[in-house]
Amino acid sequence: MADPAPATSATHVEGHPHVVIIGAGFAGLAAASELGGTPVNVTLIDRRNYHLFVPLLYQVASAALSPADIAEPIRRILSRHSNIEVMLGEVAGIDKQARTVALADGTAVAYDRLIVATGSTHSYFGHDEWAQHAPGLKTIEDARQIRARVLMAFEQAEICRNKVEQQDLITTVVVGAGPTGVEMAGAIAELSRHTLARDFRNIRPETARVLLVEAGPRVLPAFPPELSDYAHKALEKLGVTVMVNTPVEDVTAEGVTLGGRFVRAGTVIWGAGVRASPAGSWLGVDTDKAGRVKVGPDLTVPGYPEIFVLGDTALAMHDDGSPLPGLAQVAKQQGEHVGSHLAGHLAKGEAMPPFRFKNRGNLATIGRNSAVADFGSRKIKGFVAWVLWGLVHVYLLIGFSNRLLVSMQWLVAYLTYHRGARLITGERKAPVQENHERRSAAE
Amino acid sequence: MADPAPATSATHVEGHPHVVIIGAGFAGLAAASELGGTPVNVTLIDRRNYHLFVPLLYQVASAALSPADIAEPIRRILSRHSNIEVMLGEVAGIDKQARTVALADGTAVAYDRLIVATGSTHSYFGHDEWAQHAPGLKTIEDARQIRARVLMAFEQAEICRNKVEQQDLITTVVVGAGPTGVEMAGAIAELSRHTLARDFRNIRPETARVLLVEAGPRVLPAFPPELSDYAHKALEKLGVTVMVNTPVEDVTAEGVTLGGRFVRAGTVIWGAGVRASPAGSWLGVDTDKAGRVKVGPDLTVPGYPEIFVLGDTALAMHDDGSPLPGLAQVAKQQGEHVGSHLAGHLAKGEAMPPFRFKNRGNLATIGRNSAVADFGSRKIKGFVAWVLWGLVHVYLLIGFSNRLLVSMQWLVAYLTYHRGARLITGERKAPVQENHERRSAAE
Repeated sequence: MADPAPATSATHVEGHPHVVIIGAGFAGLAAASELGGTPVNVTLIDRRNYHLFVPLLYQVASAALSPADIAEPIRRILSRHSNIEVMLGEVAGIDKQARTVALADGTAVAYDRLIVATGSTHSYFGHDEWAQHAPGLKTIEDARQIRARVLMAFEQAEICRNKVEQQDLITTVVVGAGPTGVEMAGAIAELSRHTLARDFRNIRPETARVLLVEAGPRVLPAFPPELSDYAHKALEKLGVTVMVNTPVEDVTAEGVTLGGRFVRAGTVIWGAGVRASPAGSWLGVDTDKAGRVKVGPDLTVPGYPEIFVLGDTALAMHDDGSPLPGLAQVAKQQGEHVGSHLAGHLAKGEAMPPFRFKNRGNLATIGRNSAVADFGSRKIKGFVAWVLWGLVHVYLLIGFSNRLLVSMQWLVAYLTYHRGARLITGERKAPVQENHERRSAAE
Repeated sequence: MADPAPATSATHVEGHPHVVIIGAGFAGLAAASELGGTPVNVTLIDRRNYHLFVPLLYQVASAALSPADIAEPIRRILSRHSNIEVMLGEVAGIDKQARTVALADGTAVAYDRLIVATGSTHSYFGHDEWAQHAPGLKTIEDARQIRARVLMAFEQAEICRNKVEQQDLITTVVVGAGPTGVEMAGAIAELSRHTLARDFRNIRPETARVLLVEAGPRVLPAFPPELSDYAHKALEKLGVTVMVNTPVEDVTAEGVTLGGRFVRAGTVIWGAGVRASPAGSWLGVDTDKAGRVKVGPDLTVPGYPEIFVLGDTALAMHDDGSPLPGLAQVAKQQGEHVGSHLAGHLAKGEAMPPFRFKNRGNLATIGRNSAVADFGSRKIKGFVAWVLWGLVHVYLLIGFSNRLLVSMQWLVAYLTYHRGARLITGERKAPVQENHERRSAAE
């Protein structure tokens, strides 16, 4: 091995190997935590200053929680490990030969080992022009935008004097019936039927239509069919119109085209496709068509044993050759796996063992008192699954105050049906202006 | 009196007089609440969907609270009063002859009585070009921007390798030592000295400079001199450098010029000037040089007994001819006064009595365990004033869950020194890009 890469942080130890981690999602953060306190210099690079608990992001989009409730500063999470440096930066490229990560500001960070865990974003299947009309849900900005659009649609309907237009405005189409789509559809149905019901004078929010549209034959396709059936019925009970075997053909500012029919909608939300982050092109290596980097059993890039790719960015395989799903628990276990073996590997040359995914069970919530849980042999649905879902998600949150605040808000919401974060906010442009533009465009 | 203006809401009663209120701040909301349940049709227009508790906005800017903790949907606050319609809209003008309010989308809302309570914004004393470098603190967007700037300055300093530039970046200048300036300066000093202290590797946040700059001779000029003295000393104890008799001469992207000397700073915050909303120009009436509309003892515009102007938008007088201060309690009392007498005035022709301000005392906080309270004859400072400040502000918040959440977060912050909302978020533009641009501009 060559001389270790130079230490970049005042608290790094000269002579220790330098592990650079890109991305502080579930995989990157787990790897960093495992490396905390080991004789390794770690630099964790992210373009955000916080770790985001994405599984609860739909609750920000549906006005139940605030962004800060599900985000925790990366520095704070790792502050007790002086061997870990956290760097806010945007990655521009990776030089595999020179073993450096290039940042957008021109800085080059040298590494001995590199862990790439930069996640995924939405895919519009080649229709990127749909993105402006049908926002996806991956970031806090996405969630705030969806929240503002949903709430604004009701505000617009309240001042609209045309009954048909009013109903069109308070129609929401959610595209894709994976966990995010199901959760969003359920949450918006509850928002309109309970939270907003008494707050308007000229519209009846409880009559708002929520369409959940899925190209495949059933909702929650990653779950067993009996749980899909339950979820389908539970969604309909909440007032959601579920349309399976219905691919979306077009999305415009006014609505979506489904099966040749145009459906007017005030809000369209995208929960259908996922595309890996551009790590494949940074690395100049093979990817599948979703942009995932193919990795070996030890999660390294073939031919580059010093480069690991984890989480949604990686195409890793089960022992039977089937691909691992894009789940938080996969990412977290991969991060723990690499992080826990890397220090020993670097210090004593121990081999990096292959990664094996342990399925801890799959959970999805539909709405109040209603969720599904799949533990392989054991399947749970309804109230018990819903309580379990809540407990697991509070437990998995990072930070005592986040757990406390989320629990409190859920309790208050459960008892009163109120949602605490019903704010229409924007940055540069006042949302009400945007509103007027959309209205006149629609007229 | 002419025929009543037509009802605009499905729950308004034909034949009842129509009161239109513009602005759901302290004054407008208080007026609306008083009119709830009376035989009057009320329309409350605001360009936001929430009432914002501005006195705690500095806690959002300093990463202690989330925006939703101090904001409550206007509809929800007033939902039990079916005679009140809430309308999200931007006012474009007022036609005093036709008695209509024109909205930006072209709608005209007719009124029998009009209450204008649209608040105030920052004033840069003719230097509007300073606004981009020194944001003020009036909206949620302002607070998020200040929070992002302060936190980003520390992030930039962490990756900067030049010791002098590092210190410049983590220097914050707060302009204006009224309550907002004092609170911001104190909060940023605590943020750097306690919350961030252990989270960085290459900088020492506790060495960050915070300058509070005031053109006048003392901090908190609206308070008695002995409380100003206390606040001055308390700020210095927190590590704030207080500079009185120091007018700001220039503000640029790199810092501020004070007394002929240029001080480099990563963050500049504006808490100096206030300018009334453009209600004076909508109404085409006389204003003072801060844009406030001159009103009579009954808070109506001279010559227009059907138009009331309240709160920061109004220049109202004490009995002795001195102007009423721009305080939340003045706005709230004016709203209550007009709201409580208007129904009787409209129904039975009762006279509108003159408004008299009852001073309930003035509070300002400096930081942990340290605040001042002025009740005229009784002046309190230190820990007791600080507890009182906290109790009063939690009590004045609207909504049970807001009270609960703010109390919880204050308790956790008091015990752990942590702040729960340390997020750098933006809308269209990634903050880290902005960062790099600013850095290269400074180099």
